[in-house]
Amino acid sequence: MKKHIIFLLTIFLFGFSTLGQQNTSYREGNLISPVVNADRTVTFSVVAPKASQVEVWGDWEENGGHYVLSKGADGVWSCTTNPLKSEMYMYRMVIDGVANIEPLIPFVRRDVGNMFSILHVGGGVGDYFMVREVPHGTVSTVWYPSHETGTERRMTVYLPPLYNKQSCRRYPVLYLLHGSGGDECAWNDLGCVARMMDNLIAEGKAEPMIIVMPNGTISKPATSGETADNMNFRPVMTNMLPDYKNGRYELSFDEIVNYTDKHFRTRRCKYQRAIAGLSMGGMHTLYIGLNHPNLFQYYGLFSAGLNMDMDKATKAAYADVDNKLLNLKKKGYKLFWIACGTDDFLYENNQAFLARMDRLEFPYVYHESTRGHLWINWREYMLEFVPKLFKK
Amino acid sequence: MKKHIIFLLTIFLFGFSTLGQQNTSYREGNLISPVVNADRTVTFSVVAPKASQVEVWGDWEENGGHYVLSKGADGVWSCTTNPLKSEMYMYRMVIDGVANIEPLIPFVRRDVGNMFSILHVGGGVGDYFMVREVPHGTVSTVWYPSHETGTERRMTVYLPPLYNKQSCRRYPVLYLLHGSGGDECAWNDLGCVARMMDNLIAEGKAEPMIIVMPNGTISKPATSGETADNMNFRPVMTNMLPDYKNGRYELSFDEIVNYTDKHFRTRRCKYQRAIAGLSMGGMHTLYIGLNHPNLFQYYGLFSAGLNMDMDKATKAAYADVDNKLLNLKKKGYKLFWIACGTDDFLYENNQAFLARMDRLEFPYVYHESTRGHLWINWREYMLEFVPKLFKK
Repeated sequence: MKKHIIFLLTIFLFGFSTLGQQNTSYREGNLISPVVNADRTVTFSVVAPKASQVEVWGDWEENGGHYVLSKGADGVWSCTTNPLKSEMYMYRMVIDGVANIEPLIPFVRRDVGNMFSILHVGGGVGDYFMVREVPHGTVSTVWYPSHETGTERRMTVYLPPLYNKQSCRRYPVLYLLHGSGGDECAWNDLGCVARMMDNLIAEGKAEPMIIVMPNGTISKPATSGETADNMNFRPVMTNMLPDYKNGRYELSFDEIVNYTDKHFRTRRCKYQRAIAGLSMGGMHTLYIGLNHPNLFQYYGLFSAGLNMDMDKATKAAYADVDNKLLNLKKKGYKLFWIACGTDDFLYENNQAFLARMDRLEFPYVYHESTRGHLWINWREYMLEFVPKLFKK
Repeated sequence: MKKHIIFLLTIFLFGFSTLGQQNTSYREGNLISPVVNADRTVTFSVVAPKASQVEVWGDWEENGGHYVLSKGADGVWSCTTNPLKSEMYMYRMVIDGVANIEPLIPFVRRDVGNMFSILHVGGGVGDYFMVREVPHGTVSTVWYPSHETGTERRMTVYLPPLYNKQSCRRYPVLYLLHGSGGDECAWNDLGCVARMMDNLIAEGKAEPMIIVMPNGTISKPATSGETADNMNFRPVMTNMLPDYKNGRYELSFDEIVNYTDKHFRTRRCKYQRAIAGLSMGGMHTLYIGLNHPNLFQYYGLFSAGLNMDMDKATKAAYADVDNKLLNLKKKGYKLFWIACGTDDFLYENNQAFLARMDRLEFPYVYHESTRGHLWINWREYMLEFVPKLFKK
């Protein structure tokens, strides 16, 4: 048996040394970066002997999210941050002006058209974004037939831990919408939906629920990179709107609900449905709700992209907001939850919408955070919002 | 309505310009790279005004997989390759000695602990690795309880296109095993299993089947980065073997089959099961088959990590290979398919195993390709192997 292991190690070592030829693989010794130190400072190290400047930019608050690395005698650049709050951070290295993920480190996330390295600092809220030893749900990428667009479209579906074990139980559903430039992957990749839900459910803080994350960009059936005509394309929002003006997303939302109710063990009534979204998805949430007042019991608008001039809209789906709000109030709902950060560029728009709701005596709950238009905030909002859903 | 769109564009543009502060995003004008030209040459462009050397390394054969970029007056480095065969290629940019994915381009794959940019050249075999307008299957990440390890472990499951539409139909199953350093994501991410299967099924070349891709590294319940103890870890094979010597992977394989049969609409008999694997997974395939001769009707060994000294093994699961092969021959199977590339470092090992099978008059089919231990070969082997499965 020992021979067997030695043989395998030989494969490994040999395979490794030839990877440069065979599989274009590169490694640089045993350098590990980033290292989260015991005091929650983080040390970054980059091997770049020929570089003249190395910086790191991240979405932490400390030091403006920026550190300049210092060059050591061995060509290894390094820096240690101030202590960071527990969180999942996104960051990039800038080596002589070229921004990229951290070299050698495979833990990354894509946000719209940009790759970021990620970094987990545990011991607090960041623990919700890690996989723990708790029962896990299932994440599926599902293509559903869209009669509205005449194509199959992709969505991501989270099924709670016991779904595959209890074959009769039915579950409530949260429909969760991405922002502009996002796609059906965004909420799970960047919002850590599956990890967060597994952990919240294990702690008894959230009801087990199904979460459906559709793609809200009509012109694309799925995320960039998933179709041949979309491979050389760097996603930008301008290319994601052309059909939006037809209001088709809202009009076809019922086909997403119908597909979900048909193919998953859902509880098929308003009282067991919630909808929420970030930025553009927050606006989608509002208008889907205003046009389908009998579909959802819970609403979440996270940093919603709300129009200051919404009274000037003429298209039926967007017009007549006040009367639709009053109608929604009459039809009833349990929670209309709005959250925004004080530094968000949409803060004023959201304040204007709060004033509108006050004027109409439309009941809502407002949650204000610090900072801006960030995944850090949207994950925080989920941690606040989800425990309020579907409680008896 | 027009106002509405203008407002959204404003969000976009404003959001964009502030992303540098708020979301650490970077872009460089409208540069698009790589561009696949009409003659199948590929042009790479990188903005790196301060760099003194820029190279690209990829897994194409042309020019040894290597090109040196030239600096233009605008600080944009570029090169155009020779015409490339249709394929999904993996590549990295090396800027002043630092290897990384192509800056600004979000289309990437992780192979073991390394990130690569990917590039699709269509018009041939590469078309199988793109999403086409065909019915699509579902890909799920599923955690199953492993009684053997006492934890939940993760696997990736592909369900064929009609699975969710025909609620009674049952399907055959292919169990597909990764190589050393790989994990439950490897076959779908790098092997393009879902795309390939959707396309093969749509062309009538493959039977609709379920494909189960488990994680074959005992010491890890899921891919690196999925658990907190595994976040600062660069995956290397030496850390993936510690429990391998106990032979637990083989011993617990039946719990993967049992879980699959219980939770998916499978055809539960030997005739409707296949198993295949690459490199270490090819070796797993062999030994799982030798120890479970009644479980599978089809075997695929792709660049299998076969031991030259297999007769010296003493542990029960690995010992007595000849008698187990003769027993498997007696029990019967439909296909024992072996493939290897002429440049593969495991070529000699595979030739020795073919000689062993010849000596035992053990029926097999051998497929030889050019090149080495590469995903390009493993995808080619899948395109050869899968159409042979489960035919009436």
